[in-house]
Amino acid sequence: MPRYKLTVEYDGTGLVGWQRQDNGLSVQAILETAVFRLSGTEVGVAGAGRTDAGVHATGQVAHIDLVKAFHPDRVRDGLNFWLRGEDAPVSVVAAEVVPDDFHARFSAIGRRYLYRIVDRRPPPVLDLHRVMWVHRRLDVDAMHLAAQNLVGHHDFTSFRASECQSATPVKTLDRLDVLRVGEEIHVVAWARSFLHHQVRNMVGTLRLVGEGKWGGEDVVRILAARDRAKAGPTAAPQGLYLTDVIYPDVVGGEGGAAPVR
Amino acid sequence: MPRYKLTVEYDGTGLVGWQRQDNGLSVQAILETAVFRLSGTEVGVAGAGRTDAGVHATGQVAHIDLVKAFHPDRVRDGLNFWLRGEDAPVSVVAAEVVPDDFHARFSAIGRRYLYRIVDRRPPPVLDLHRVMWVHRRLDVDAMHLAAQNLVGHHDFTSFRASECQSATPVKTLDRLDVLRVGEEIHVVAWARSFLHHQVRNMVGTLRLVGEGKWGGEDVVRILAARDRAKAGPTAAPQGLYLTDVIYPDVVGGEGGAAPVR
Repeated sequence: MPRYKLTVEYDGTGLVGWQRQDNGLSVQAILETAVFRLSGTEVGVAGAGRTDAGVHATGQVAHIDLVKAFHPDRVRDGLNFWLRGEDAPVSVVAAEVVPDDFHARFSAIGRRYLYRIVDRRPPPVLDLHRVMWVHRRLDVDAMHLAAQNLVGHHDFTSFRASECQSATPVKTLDRLDVLRVGEEIHVVAWARSFLHHQVRNMVGTLRLVGEGKWGGEDVVRILAARDRAKAGPTAAPQGLYLTDVIYPDVVGGEGGAAPVR
Repeated sequence: MPRYKLTVEYDGTGLVGWQRQDNGLSVQAILETAVFRLSGTEVGVAGAGRTDAGVHATGQVAHIDLVKAFHPDRVRDGLNFWLRGEDAPVSVVAAEVVPDDFHARFSAIGRRYLYRIVDRRPPPVLDLHRVMWVHRRLDVDAMHLAAQNLVGHHDFTSFRASECQSATPVKTLDRLDVLRVGEEIHVVAWARSFLHHQVRNMVGTLRLVGEGKWGGEDVVRILAARDRAKAGPTAAPQGLYLTDVIYPDVVGGEGGAAPVR
């Protein structure tokens, strides 16, 4: 029973998020339906990151087991055939055969999220549902400097959603970069794994730094407080993208250092 | 009666194009309604380029006359206030006071269009309605080379829509660049003015060059034929953006050379 790794792009607008739920359409349910249509068997689709409603992905990773062996390009094209349709929100950008012990979620050793902000007075209409809009110009250098206080091994309780199911609030944030890219501000976060809402809560706090309401010392104070109420509001989902999930070169092997991008 | 130059961004999806029409919502009608709500008087909005249904703009230019003088930033913000709403497709990105002889269409000495193509096998879902999707990899270098045959002073009948209202099919195309930008191909066209569908018809022809069906000599032959039936199909509207309209530094003055960007 061959296992396939799928790299998945989706527009999270109008979806309830990655995970199958009763109250609306999820990426997982859409993919599972396509896999059923392709293979004729009910197959569970496991994903690397459980993105929230409205959150997008350019590089979500999932794995599936198929009873019959197909060439991976046929798996990609076959799934996209069943995913097609007017305004179809999900696309399989790549499929590859992986060893049986590969698990999209548990084998992952790194995840990278991008948060897009447009900070200008006129509302963005072409990137509606694709970015967070902030009416006023933000101080990107101050945001980047303050963000460095969050990098490292910390108790991230102040940036953790109350519904978070992680066993521990202690995580290692490898990088958190804030940079201006054309008309946008990009916040890029790298870690082995994140708490629920962690990226959006960090962005909500950094936005207040960008507006001059807080400085780096406030970010230090907020992190030390281990109190969600001390940090900024949760940034809107539509600016967030899961862009990369990183695996060791040989899954099931020794692993080794996580590739840094 | 002060005259204002407006720089306008819009998402053309679901609109009938720039020009007011009976069969649906146009950018012009949306803007005229907003100007009426802001100023209390019915004011015609003249645009620099009459974009088609589904075509977008990041830098369309229009002008309006207001009975009362407002600070230009208040004109921009006031119009955006009246343009607001769920999925509002039009935004005024800039407003400035201009001399009375400034005319968005007739004063323009240059227009720049961008056409975005995604050439990959999986369908793009995040950029649906924002790009043309071509399933197969295109030869960008061949497209750029072939495109150079269209640059210059020519009779563009082969690339002109039958509905075109231009007095003459003879135009000067200043530049036509085809380049790969990340996962996309960008076709960028510069001219004082264009015929109806000219950019989309040139792109439809260059796509066939990128697929290896035609070469540079075919483009030369097609141009010389002065026959629309000889060229490629009209490329889909959703990939096209009016990005810049260029005016002489002093409108009403001597003008001078067109700024090349």
